[in-house]
Amino acid sequence: MKNLSLLARPVREVAMQRMNGSALIQERDFLATEEPLEIRVEGHNIAIVMRTPGEDRELAAGFLVTEGLLHTVSDLVDIRHQHHCLFPARNVNGGRIDVNEAVPGKEASRTGLEMNRSDGNVINVQLKNPEAMDLKKLTRHVFTSSSCGICSKSSIEAVRQQFPPIEDDFEVDPQVLFDLPAVLSSAQESFKRTGGLHACALFDSAGNLLVLREDVGRHNALDKVIGWALLKDSLPLRQHILLLSGRTSFEMMQKALAAGVPIVAAISAPSSLAAEFARDSGQTLVGFLRGEKMNIYAGGGRIH
Amino acid sequence: MKNLSLLARPVREVAMQRMNGSALIQERDFLATEEPLEIRVEGHNIAIVMRTPGEDRELAAGFLVTEGLLHTVSDLVDIRHQHHCLFPARNVNGGRIDVNEAVPGKEASRTGLEMNRSDGNVINVQLKNPEAMDLKKLTRHVFTSSSCGICSKSSIEAVRQQFPPIEDDFEVDPQVLFDLPAVLSSAQESFKRTGGLHACALFDSAGNLLVLREDVGRHNALDKVIGWALLKDSLPLRQHILLLSGRTSFEMMQKALAAGVPIVAAISAPSSLAAEFARDSGQTLVGFLRGEKMNIYAGGGRIH
Repeated sequence: MKNLSLLARPVREVAMQRMNGSALIQERDFLATEEPLEIRVEGHNIAIVMRTPGEDRELAAGFLVTEGLLHTVSDLVDIRHQHHCLFPARNVNGGRIDVNEAVPGKEASRTGLEMNRSDGNVINVQLKNPEAMDLKKLTRHVFTSSSCGICSKSSIEAVRQQFPPIEDDFEVDPQVLFDLPAVLSSAQESFKRTGGLHACALFDSAGNLLVLREDVGRHNALDKVIGWALLKDSLPLRQHILLLSGRTSFEMMQKALAAGVPIVAAISAPSSLAAEFARDSGQTLVGFLRGEKMNIYAGGGRIH
Repeated sequence: MKNLSLLARPVREVAMQRMNGSALIQERDFLATEEPLEIRVEGHNIAIVMRTPGEDRELAAGFLVTEGLLHTVSDLVDIRHQHHCLFPARNVNGGRIDVNEAVPGKEASRTGLEMNRSDGNVINVQLKNPEAMDLKKLTRHVFTSSSCGICSKSSIEAVRQQFPPIEDDFEVDPQVLFDLPAVLSSAQESFKRTGGLHACALFDSAGNLLVLREDVGRHNALDKVIGWALLKDSLPLRQHILLLSGRTSFEMMQKALAAGVPIVAAISAPSSLAAEFARDSGQTLVGFLRGEKMNIYAGGGRIH
């Protein structure tokens, strides 16, 4: 199967005017690519995510994990991009529709907004036991979920019940945490060019970088990391550390909990609910990780 | 009517451990408050937004404006907080339910997650002609909208059709734009204490600050500004400049277009789709507005 990630463009060159005082210069600039990805399960549209193209299979897998709908790689039959079709998603052959890999380059003349449902911007997930998943419930859950800042009360409570608190004796040395931001920074290639991407990186207990993902949406960057772990059959991530380039919200902690991550560290501030959720969930939450300093908002027992 | 904004706490004090090298100190810190707000229209739950409490009426109004569901203050009968009720929203008296102002302080002992549907975290919007709004369609639209990073194709296209491109001869001097970030920075009180809030500020053509709103969600900060304008019957904002503290996504440009704002400037980078959307919509988009420098990604004709 072709890997569309190789063809995706996380950075796009655009024309712009650079103004310096009164001087105006025509220039080219690099922007973080933002395009819609339609995620389908068994041919049913369950969500469209505004994301940076690349690692779409990971994103779709991670999205389903953090929604509580997918738990192990053995539940998956396939995740692949679909061709653009002129008709809406159809149910053929027992609820499934034909899926084909996209043809590279076909979307070159289209603009980002027009690219929805075109090649490369639709991905379909096939499950081993699709009948076990109530798609009606799924659609409602996803559309009302908190993964995007809009959620229903029932989904907040459901997620808290779905993902039990973490109870373990995992520990790290503070120096391991102090060293992480420099590793992240040196690895963030696209951010350096655009200044417009959030990063999420996964480290082992010794501080070795396992995977780094960047996206215009911070939730997507985290979903991609979690999807990467699912596809490697590495969930739950019980001995790992997540590093976030920006701030930490309730929803980021919730996604980390879905993957079983005990320690989340961020360069910037957490929200009040992120700290509260971390305490309730047995997670360690670190903020303002800069230089040899950090603030520990929850689960300090794991750091010493 | 009591103004709950006066009682809301945008900043919350928490206990934490500050680690500096090997020294560990127990301290207090201030975090940006994040709590769910349930937005109801005529008693029907249409969305729950993870937001920073304060200016909830503006947030609800702005949310409905940027979803294309509310156009003028004359369509509004009332927007107010509701008491916590033990039962789900009910339809009484021709589709409406009783709404009451929340009792201050009643939520003091509750945690953030438990506060959903409790006092202060539910707001109900009453419309002049509720029958003109198809609530079934509304619910679907909101849950699948792009305001949260998850949207359906149909909603992307619908929004583009709903909000026509801006065509005007509004102009500003570059120096007016260069001066805006310092005004924003000096006015951002909560950010200074927490480092965890996005800001959105509205200026007139001479660079005078009209309103500043901060929120853990950047979409919410913008919705609050737009709701402020709606409640003052000042839409559309044809002679105004929006300044964003962070990055600019497609969705932020779309919300600005809903309010008719011709110029959007940001301290950080836009996404590729934000620049593309701005060009298609006749909006001016400025990024990396720092010192006496800026990048103009669209609509440069308005700046000279």
